[in-house]
Amino acid sequence: MKNYIIHDEWKIIEEGFRQEENRVTESLLSIGNGRSGQRANFEEKYSGDTLRGSYVAGVYYPDKTRVGWWKNGYPEYFAKILNAANWIGIDVCVDGEELDLNRCEVLSFYRDIDMKSGLLTRQFVARLSSGKQIEVRAKRFLSIADQEIGAISYSVKALNFSGELSLTPYIDGNVMNEDSNYDEVFWIGVSQKVAGSSGFVCMETKKTAFQVCTGMNFAVSVDNRPVAPEFTVVEEEKYVGSAFKVWLKAGEEICLEKYAAIVSTLYYPANKLQDATEKALKRAAAKGFDKLFADQEKAWEKRWETSDIRIDGDVAAQQGIRFNIFQLNQTYLGDDERLNIGPKGFTGEKYGGVTYWDTEAYCLPFTLGTAPQMVSKNLLLYRYKHLSKAIENAKKLGFTDGAALYPMVTINGEECHNEWEITFEEIHRNGAMAYAIYNYINYTGDREYLAPYGFEVLLALSRFWSQRINWSDVKKKFVLLGVTGPNEYENNVNNNFHTSYMAVWTLKYTLEAIDYLKKEHPLLFEDLVKKLKLKELKETSRWKKIIKDMYFPYDFTRKIYLQQDGFLDKELIPASELKPEDRPINQKWSWDRILRSPYIKQADTLQSIYWFEDEFDRESIERHFDFYEPLTVHESSLSSCIHAILAASIGRQEKAYEMYLRTARLDLDDYNNDTCDGLHITSMGGTWMAFVQGFGGMRVKNNQLHFNPFIPEGWNSYSFRLNFREAHLEFKMDKSAFSVFNHSKANIDLVVRGKQFHLPAKKELIIK
Amino acid sequence: MKNYIIHDEWKIIEEGFRQEENRVTESLLSIGNGRSGQRANFEEKYSGDTLRGSYVAGVYYPDKTRVGWWKNGYPEYFAKILNAANWIGIDVCVDGEELDLNRCEVLSFYRDIDMKSGLLTRQFVARLSSGKQIEVRAKRFLSIADQEIGAISYSVKALNFSGELSLTPYIDGNVMNEDSNYDEVFWIGVSQKVAGSSGFVCMETKKTAFQVCTGMNFAVSVDNRPVAPEFTVVEEEKYVGSAFKVWLKAGEEICLEKYAAIVSTLYYPANKLQDATEKALKRAAAKGFDKLFADQEKAWEKRWETSDIRIDGDVAAQQGIRFNIFQLNQTYLGDDERLNIGPKGFTGEKYGGVTYWDTEAYCLPFTLGTAPQMVSKNLLLYRYKHLSKAIENAKKLGFTDGAALYPMVTINGEECHNEWEITFEEIHRNGAMAYAIYNYINYTGDREYLAPYGFEVLLALSRFWSQRINWSDVKKKFVLLGVTGPNEYENNVNNNFHTSYMAVWTLKYTLEAIDYLKKEHPLLFEDLVKKLKLKELKETSRWKKIIKDMYFPYDFTRKIYLQQDGFLDKELIPASELKPEDRPINQKWSWDRILRSPYIKQADTLQSIYWFEDEFDRESIERHFDFYEPLTVHESSLSSCIHAILAASIGRQEKAYEMYLRTARLDLDDYNNDTCDGLHITSMGGTWMAFVQGFGGMRVKNNQLHFNPFIPEGWNSYSFRLNFREAHLEFKMDKSAFSVFNHSKANIDLVVRGKQFHLPAKKELIIK
Repeated sequence: MKNYIIHDEWKIIEEGFRQEENRVTESLLSIGNGRSGQRANFEEKYSGDTLRGSYVAGVYYPDKTRVGWWKNGYPEYFAKILNAANWIGIDVCVDGEELDLNRCEVLSFYRDIDMKSGLLTRQFVARLSSGKQIEVRAKRFLSIADQEIGAISYSVKALNFSGELSLTPYIDGNVMNEDSNYDEVFWIGVSQKVAGSSGFVCMETKKTAFQVCTGMNFAVSVDNRPVAPEFTVVEEEKYVGSAFKVWLKAGEEICLEKYAAIVSTLYYPANKLQDATEKALKRAAAKGFDKLFADQEKAWEKRWETSDIRIDGDVAAQQGIRFNIFQLNQTYLGDDERLNIGPKGFTGEKYGGVTYWDTEAYCLPFTLGTAPQMVSKNLLLYRYKHLSKAIENAKKLGFTDGAALYPMVTINGEECHNEWEITFEEIHRNGAMAYAIYNYINYTGDREYLAPYGFEVLLALSRFWSQRINWSDVKKKFVLLGVTGPNEYENNVNNNFHTSYMAVWTLKYTLEAIDYLKKEHPLLFEDLVKKLKLKELKETSRWKKIIKDMYFPYDFTRKIYLQQDGFLDKELIPASELKPEDRPINQKWSWDRILRSPYIKQADTLQSIYWFEDEFDRESIERHFDFYEPLTVHESSLSSCIHAILAASIGRQEKAYEMYLRTARLDLDDYNNDTCDGLHITSMGGTWMAFVQGFGGMRVKNNQLHFNPFIPEGWNSYSFRLNFREAHLEFKMDKSAFSVFNHSKANIDLVVRGKQFHLPAKKELIIK
Repeated sequence: MKNYIIHDEWKIIEEGFRQEENRVTESLLSIGNGRSGQRANFEEKYSGDTLRGSYVAGVYYPDKTRVGWWKNGYPEYFAKILNAANWIGIDVCVDGEELDLNRCEVLSFYRDIDMKSGLLTRQFVARLSSGKQIEVRAKRFLSIADQEIGAISYSVKALNFSGELSLTPYIDGNVMNEDSNYDEVFWIGVSQKVAGSSGFVCMETKKTAFQVCTGMNFAVSVDNRPVAPEFTVVEEEKYVGSAFKVWLKAGEEICLEKYAAIVSTLYYPANKLQDATEKALKRAAAKGFDKLFADQEKAWEKRWETSDIRIDGDVAAQQGIRFNIFQLNQTYLGDDERLNIGPKGFTGEKYGGVTYWDTEAYCLPFTLGTAPQMVSKNLLLYRYKHLSKAIENAKKLGFTDGAALYPMVTINGEECHNEWEITFEEIHRNGAMAYAIYNYINYTGDREYLAPYGFEVLLALSRFWSQRINWSDVKKKFVLLGVTGPNEYENNVNNNFHTSYMAVWTLKYTLEAIDYLKKEHPLLFEDLVKKLKLKELKETSRWKKIIKDMYFPYDFTRKIYLQQDGFLDKELIPASELKPEDRPINQKWSWDRILRSPYIKQADTLQSIYWFEDEFDRESIERHFDFYEPLTVHESSLSSCIHAILAASIGRQEKAYEMYLRTARLDLDDYNNDTCDGLHITSMGGTWMAFVQGFGGMRVKNNQLHFNPFIPEGWNSYSFRLNFREAHLEFKMDKSAFSVFNHSKANIDLVVRGKQFHLPAKKELIIK
């Protein structure tokens, strides 16, 4: 837990240079535009502790898996989002002395990112060993208006001397992943060129053969007057630079505007990359920094318009929620169904930077609520396109006849995690895939998604469950053995309630889908039966048997479902009785001790209760919450949000607020002491859910929005917005009323605290 | 499964050169003398497939563990027995053309190892590309009479030409482990010297700083006349050689006698190594090959005298049992309690070459029966000396107050496996440690072992179980959660019968030990109480509660104990119904599928029933055998032996024989297709057990030997020998009688088929 970030409604601010927290600040102030992203590294050389990281969307490397003892079916690689060419580099020398904040006196230092516009700003005064003082002001952003472009404005002022300043802007492809399993370099140089003030480096990834071309050009001015120095090009392997010198008088300021282009073979054929790079650089140079930035501001304004959440009366909370929304919007734009939302986005390398069930469970609600419908559909199509790989994955494990097991981690549809207890057993993720289809259709009303896409996925999932579940002669019930629930602090357990529940629900939902298709699209359904070789009677009759006779471990005394068969055999001592020095247990305890303990990492039984709350009465939800939450240590970033929503739904407002705060400022306050590795991007979707579904009490039932709002103590008011089908609505809650403004042209009916309301277009509804 | 080894009573023979099986033959014909050992590699260069391996006892390297995802408590290294300097090397050139059996025509080829004397012989005729033919006869052994010495006799005859033969005997320290986790070289050169016909290379292991000095000298003769050629020394990093040339006329034969010395800092201070090497070389040269070999024969004769098993009427079985005994005797001499019996001995690198519970469970009975008592005691002392490390290991996992968890794999007492489900959970090994103490005392009668050593270990083990077991409120019983039994095809299960049984038995046995010590050695016990901070009343009263109220999963219908809580939830399809193409399942199925299957790798519930058969009546043993054996795939080399003994004990003679054959010729016939990696040394102890306890029906009860022998159909007779306390006995079984000859000076009482017999010294007992 840290507390050095200055509270501000729109900015994330570091004041004073905290070298020891540099990696944390680098993560927090990351910039991104959905196509690439970058940690808040320095432009000039820095010999102190830093994780230099630039990442390009969709470009990965299948790094050879590292395991102790190979077993059949293990994934062969762990895909890594690659650290890509450094495009921000500018070496600075003052009369021959290199600027390096680790080796000079830093007289003042300030850095922030303005979330309104995605602008990263840094300003400092440094005294070199020669005694010469310079002031540097650096600004940069990755454009979301023109996603191939990054721009930097880098100014150096000679404060107390006249002298020669030499600058070398460069592109450097000599980068490695810190988490490379075998210290491999993943990039091969393809071509490079540098002439005058522009140059590029084009590189290819080993094995996957992605190409990325990174180019730069720049313009120089002194005290706002353009100057044309002489350039000396520097060329090394995978490196191009262009050095120049300027004589500054004391008080004069040189400004370098450096533009970068980053293009990849995801969007161009390899032989057009260089051309695309040059074109992008021309566009950038033609506009210049200020005009590019004006476009950027406008584009961000549009994004904020539909997704901003405002809180009056709590700056820390305001900063927290905006930070979450901002980072989600920097990571994923939703315009390319080949991309997804990595757990660290573009802010670090940990977890391989690829797709987990987090997307379906924690991010989809955010895109449904704040982005055009196509964005959410693209997230679903990503999985649809991976279906054949998921079927192949299941086949490797011994499943047949089109059963699919989606990977625990993936980029291209292939499994690439490396622990059997996760890849083979944490199969509830298949349930999340099915739930996402349901959630999308429930929110958007787009049932037509089923026929071309959704049903095919549902069928493959149901086939998996049908084979994975077996009949227990001794229980006279169907059982689901050897699974790992969302609570990874237990694994290889039998009859995990959540997994079994998701399995049975998926079978039911697939049956519903069949009924719907047969009724509404009989011809299409016939085609699907043929294509997917569906033996309807045989397959569905087994599903129906499973639905009827599935075993769920249950405690008849406490009247609660049990997380798994053996849960009550454990010593159930509440987490509150743990000694502070034992927490977080995942850093303090042996894995063995954690596994045998009753402590829960994140919502497990409560995850399905959250998803299917209508199937449980309020007392039952309370019983489960009161049993499981005290045993939960919330050591997953995905835990608090679900608990916040459930707490709100049973009227525990204080608990809901406590849980919400944990998720909202998780990274800003570095709760788990791991922000240095990058941000928890997917859990930011959970924060949004906690707000809208927790405080707002938002649900969608029978094609209608429902609300059950409350306002945390100490806040004056809050507001959020939602896209819902044709409508765009703004909700505001204060101490006295809940109001809804309908910004759209569509009339809408909605339910607030159980009562129906009609809200015409462009009108406001105020409920006291 | 392979079948190319020629059947012979004393020799393991390869006839004809099978290049594709070279690694298998290299394993099978390995030589060893307890101090070092070596695969049957060629002296001359060989560019074909080979695993060059020489290994020195007790010299290891803590190779950095490779795991996918690090968790607290994981062992930091996986200890590797190191591939050490190659001491057999002799480069051979005929008129400038190098001899390499991979690059010339092999006209005839023969290799064998004579188990009577540990002599490896090879003979071949090769036609070089020049058309010149040579005949090579090579013999070598590692002396068990002088364990620092290896000797080679290498003869080359010019068959169809006269020409220049050049030979370069060398020592080469540029070796690597094939299983090095990060392709590291583990050895650093310390010193080396070569002059005339002798030289040495002294190297040190990284991190562990063991030093090994490997020296050579040699003598040359032509047609038995000593010659003195001119030597040209060759020196490179970690390499010394001495080249010379001889002119041979057609039909003449040159013979090189090369002696090697291998000494390590296990036995000398580092500054004395060179001296020790030179002295050993002098001893060798003074004796010469023939005299050294005569000593070797005599020493082996003595070993065979007490350990040989003879079978009349079945050469394959005879070869099989001798091969097992021979390899055990090559691996472990029992004269140094710092050494132990690795699962591959000196024959390969797999499994790290270090100590598993195999030693206690499968090898101790062999040493008890065939070797002086001190040998078995040394095996126990090895663990006693590791006790503080076992306590440290348990501490890392969260246990306190002197509880000990012995490592799953170790060399120096520290855990060095790398899978959590094994290191943290396969804790039944602690039971094997306790059982070994019981077994040793039961066999030898040496109860005095308890006071200085055994009790301290038992107490630490009982403390572990006492903490590891917890009370289940729902079962109202004590439970043992999250364990892996000997059947590693299930893991992280609850209430594994075997583990729980061993735990409870250990508590009982420790209580017995306390009673004995209090009664027989009250003062010693008082000291132990102080030293070990035993709170007798408090600690033992919890043990007694656990003993009284331990939970064992039980099927009241079948009247059998269950392998674990959820075992009956599985689909119990007998292994005989598996398709042939699905076996062995550990090579054909995904790990996931194996875990969910009912198939058993090796005796699990049956392991404790074997160990404590007197606590089960015959019908109960039959019920358990008939339930578990059909589900057992015997994919561990340690499986068949236990099943053979149990089958014999319930009168299933055919089954016993089937199981015995599987274990006896496991490596010779390459049953599991993995002999290429090295031999299954520890399972060879199991083969001996299967013979003596299975066919012989040998047990020790109340300080007496018991027998219940039978003879497999098709055999004429068999005989084996046993050391039992003061007595040395020879047992013979044929179609008509079971006879016992008492070779010793001690009278002895024994029980055969339930009847008491008295056998005076030097007399024979014949029972029809």
